Amino acid sequence: MRIGELSRRTGVSVPTIKFYVREGLLPPGRLSSPNQAHYDEGHERRLRLIRTLIGVGGLSVAAVADVLAAIDDPSQPVHKVLGVASTSIAGQGTDDGGAGGKARSGAGDGSGDGSGDGTDGSGNGERTAAVRAEVEALLARRGWRVSPHYPAVDSLVTAVAAMERLGHGDLVRLLDAYADAVEIIARADVEYVAERADRDGLVETVVVGTLLGDKIIAALRRIAQVDASARRFGD
Amino acid sequence: MRIGELSRRTGVSVPTIKFYVREGLLPPGRLSSPNQAHYDEGHERRLRLIRTLIGVGGLSVAAVADVLAAIDDPSQPVHKVLGVASTSIAGQGTDDGGAGGKARSGAGDGSGDGSGDGTDGSGNGERTAAVRAEVEALLARRGWRVSPHYPAVDSLVTAVAAMERLGHGDLVRLLDAYADAVEIIARADVEYVAERADRDGLVETVVVGTLLGDKIIAALRRIAQVDASARRFGD
Repeated sequence: MRIGELSRRTGVSVPTIKFYVREGLLPPGRLSSPNQAHYDEGHERRLRLIRTLIGVGGLSVAAVADVLAAIDDPSQPVHKVLGVASTSIAGQGTDDGGAGGKARSGAGDGSGDGSGDGTDGSGNGERTAAVRAEVEALLARRGWRVSPHYPAVDSLVTAVAAMERLGHGDLVRLLDAYADAVEIIARADVEYVAERADRDGLVETVVVGTLLGDKIIAALRRIAQVDASARRFGD
Repeated sequence: MRIGELSRRTGVSVPTIKFYVREGLLPPGRLSSPNQAHYDEGHERRLRLIRTLIGVGGLSVAAVADVLAAIDDPSQPVHKVLGVASTSIAGQGTDDGGAGGKARSGAGDGSGDGSGDGTDGSGNGERTAAVRAEVEALLARRGWRVSPHYPAVDSLVTAVAAMERLGHGDLVRLLDAYADAVEIIARADVEYVAERADRDGLVETVVVGTLLGDKIIAALRRIAQVDASARRFGD
């Protein structure tokens, strides 16, 4: 197909397609004459993956290039490719954990004062170290084999530290129940991915399934809370 | 204590405290002389709750007033109070489900073109209705007693519809595994809340536990995925 047809089929504009080719994300089309390039379904699939990595995954062009290089290197085993994709999106959706990190701390109160968020700013370093030790103990207890430098470990530490800062450190008692639950989720996620055929498709599934999956899990949790609350506290 | 001491203990500025009193969120202090008001620990606790509802929960001043009115009405049973709090934050953290709803659809690609997000814009209404039917079937299958007008139900429909639009409608097969997992989470959440003593504390726990809990669950899920992937695909 010509570039206009590729644009129409994917909803990506011609200048954007040319930009991806210049940046090396998308292979150039096959030249049938000096001014005419032809694109095939491989281009279409790759273009859709690029759009998903940027639009849903929030990846930079440089990060997309890294993920695509891992996909295209036949010496990389599947779980390494998935690891690159997963690390690229690991912080997405998990990073603004708590009032301390939120821009809207003073928003909506009409007072024009954004300074007071109930934290005193003291001893945060020590407390974060204590929270990190607590998180690492949890990972060891579960037998989860993951590098302590994996970005999601930092996100977890940040969120738990924010809870403590707000005076709800006691909520860490829920972590083991949450860990039981996410093991069910992660096993289902990985089994689903394992059924996919090609490496492009695998990575796209990880990105879409992880990020939109977070939204789905959060919504399901609220719904299940309403039901559990009605059962517990009665009508 | 005087207003300056209340400000120091909570980190909320004096003008902001006065604004909350004017808006009826915080009861006025007890006047010991025409220019001197005294505040007690009840004020301090209430002020902390207001800051959490605004700062972590993202609630407007009007929504905070609704939640506080429910707390202070002795005729309201606990689960109604929790329902008001939960509905107020139900959309938080679950609403930007998918490329179609994201402002950064074209960001980071340097092309200045934000138009193409891979969707064709046709038939969305019909598909959303089909997704809604699918979601309602899930709720019925689980026996979850929740109004179909609860905001989290809309968030769930939006996120599932976004998956379909991206060509990953097949991911709905994971919903039952996710539902199994969130039942564990919601039961733990509600048991934890049930152990709290006062109604102020209950509501604060729901808001902090739900919103920061989402971040914790998302981070734990990524970590558990890495472990499950290593086990499934081997080293």
